[in-house]
Amino acid sequence: MEHSGKVLLELFFMFAGGKLLAEVFERLRQPGVLGELFAGVLLGPSLLGLVHPNDLTLGLAEIGAIFLLFTVGLETRPGDLLAVGWTATLVAVSGVIVPFVLGFWYMKAVGYNGIESIFVGAAMVATSVGITARVLADLGALSSRAARVILAAAVLDDILGLLVLAVVSSLSTGQVHYVQLGIVAAEAAAFALVMIFLASRVIGAFHPHVEKLRARNSAFILSIILCLGLSLASTYIGMAAIVGAFLAGLALADHSDRWKLRENAHPLSEFLAPFFFVLLGVQVNVRTFATPGLVNLASMICILAIVGKLVGCGLGCLRLGFKDALRVGIGMVPRGEVGLIVAGVGLTLHTISDAVYSIVLVMSMVTTLAAPPFLRMVLPPPSPGPEIGQGNGSVENGV
Amino acid sequence: MEHSGKVLLELFFMFAGGKLLAEVFERLRQPGVLGELFAGVLLGPSLLGLVHPNDLTLGLAEIGAIFLLFTVGLETRPGDLLAVGWTATLVAVSGVIVPFVLGFWYMKAVGYNGIESIFVGAAMVATSVGITARVLADLGALSSRAARVILAAAVLDDILGLLVLAVVSSLSTGQVHYVQLGIVAAEAAAFALVMIFLASRVIGAFHPHVEKLRARNSAFILSIILCLGLSLASTYIGMAAIVGAFLAGLALADHSDRWKLRENAHPLSEFLAPFFFVLLGVQVNVRTFATPGLVNLASMICILAIVGKLVGCGLGCLRLGFKDALRVGIGMVPRGEVGLIVAGVGLTLHTISDAVYSIVLVMSMVTTLAAPPFLRMVLPPPSPGPEIGQGNGSVENGV
Repeated sequence: MEHSGKVLLELFFMFAGGKLLAEVFERLRQPGVLGELFAGVLLGPSLLGLVHPNDLTLGLAEIGAIFLLFTVGLETRPGDLLAVGWTATLVAVSGVIVPFVLGFWYMKAVGYNGIESIFVGAAMVATSVGITARVLADLGALSSRAARVILAAAVLDDILGLLVLAVVSSLSTGQVHYVQLGIVAAEAAAFALVMIFLASRVIGAFHPHVEKLRARNSAFILSIILCLGLSLASTYIGMAAIVGAFLAGLALADHSDRWKLRENAHPLSEFLAPFFFVLLGVQVNVRTFATPGLVNLASMICILAIVGKLVGCGLGCLRLGFKDALRVGIGMVPRGEVGLIVAGVGLTLHTISDAVYSIVLVMSMVTTLAAPPFLRMVLPPPSPGPEIGQGNGSVENGV
Repeated sequence: MEHSGKVLLELFFMFAGGKLLAEVFERLRQPGVLGELFAGVLLGPSLLGLVHPNDLTLGLAEIGAIFLLFTVGLETRPGDLLAVGWTATLVAVSGVIVPFVLGFWYMKAVGYNGIESIFVGAAMVATSVGITARVLADLGALSSRAARVILAAAVLDDILGLLVLAVVSSLSTGQVHYVQLGIVAAEAAAFALVMIFLASRVIGAFHPHVEKLRARNSAFILSIILCLGLSLASTYIGMAAIVGAFLAGLALADHSDRWKLRENAHPLSEFLAPFFFVLLGVQVNVRTFATPGLVNLASMICILAIVGKLVGCGLGCLRLGFKDALRVGIGMVPRGEVGLIVAGVGLTLHTISDAVYSIVLVMSMVTTLAAPPFLRMVLPPPSPGPEIGQGNGSVENGV
């Protein structure tokens, strides 16, 4: 059992180590996902050397990301997306454009090539609202106007972030082909629109047939097949697999209650997602931080990432008044997992260097750690009321 | 996304193909798990060549087997094991000894070496009661005396089969070291006894601490860590990983309701176990059936596997009368997944040849397919009563 034991040992270190540090971070009132990242950095080849990126760990990490995004999709009903108001749309869109432009422009300005600059910009786009939702819930502020805008804009942001990822993941090394980029963007948008407007109804029409199947838990089995199939389809049209996984979840979200899809998908994502986050840490080469100028560059990117969301999202809802605009701007700062996913895709495609990967990881961590204390400062003190607790952030679930 | 797409394609074929044929088999009133095996044979290198054993598929299959056995363990309460009566114990024990001796003796007689003979004998030991429980439920006979003996003996059989597996998996190629075998047998028995008598109480004592953890679903997370940790421990003391996974489930079975472990573990096993069964099929080289004499040998092993359980289990409960002894004997014939697991372990360890692996797979399939029609013949016709339906067999769950 030599080989089997060695394989199991790596998996045990990843899962148990990740969950141990996640618990430590939770006790420090920080998101557990950052603990899993740190566990990966510690376990990885550049420090302890107990876990390595190989076919199995990379494969498990990819399946983990797929089920994580599938679960996020299951929490996002197409109807909710369509009901998002004008303000939230403006917040989401300008909160995507400003950070992207800032990141892209700065990286270009300091001499990086087009593709690496695009990847950094793309990683600065997405909002991870889980941590913000937790702070809002702790302060009993989930029903405030600012909170409603944040939560709605964050849902749109998931879609926009994945569209950006779909586009950038079609980039291979070398030249940026703008025509090809345009085609992928059109495909991704069409894919998303079909899944939002059509797929849910088509699935509803098949409902009687699904119940007739003999296999136990057949709806869940079919949902996994749809998730894997759309992930595969995404890679064939040149996008990241997780875009398809998210859209599969989105298409099934309206049927989730009837078929108990969320209850079934959560344990899967709880087991598999840690492999993804830990492996993101494993792939960090801590020696890159000794690169001259890298710490400065990372600090600058962190500042731009914070300013980008503050300004972009704040401007989008300035008509709500300065105070609410500030709250929304700060609430949208955390990047969390979607930024990490973009970085992971870039590394897998060998389109970004170890140094740029490290910068993106630091940016994701810093924005996620920085937001909660500032958010607590600008929000009104907790009103006595029923505590809503965990589980309110779409992105937080399944992590 | 070239590599990512290729990896996903294999996983998609395995899961979707396995589940498609499982549905076909279920409609033919056969166990779905045989459909997954056939899907693997079709997809594997010796026929379509769409799926190959590699680090990722082998790793996923191993994790699948671990969670499958973990789920089976969760269904087996230590108290139920201790409450099994004298008759069932006799049925289980003589139903283990007779097939093992027959298989070992016959393989030796036709010229195979000691280790291959032991593996074939070991694969003939375990009972897969899932399919029998289904037939009993269909005929409304689950509460009959014969049914109660079958179900209780099958639970003991799981333990005995895994003990035998623990011992044989310590065999490497070459000589059989009986002293070493004895040590592993003692270790395995001690491990099982500790888990049955002590572990459940120790876990119960930690109960208040578990509830204090911050991570969501922390009991489930801890149960996974225990499952992976004991699987790892099993490999270190020279046993198969799944023995530890089963014992981890067993130790947690009494706490499963409070912590919702079964509800959480089932989706994991539903997603992962098909990779195990499909890969068992993938590893079949259909060309081995052209080996001269192999079909004859396989037929003989099938006959001995059926006769072994009929005689061994029947003798064990002859005092219930001939009719019930016959019912119990036939009910214990199906080998199903535990026989397959033994074969898979043998192949992984390179201790059995492709031909012997094929024989064991055929034996598992034939005994599983053969039992239900005969069982229907010897059982009284269905009495009108509430249909009990699925989910009564401990082994069936999670497949």
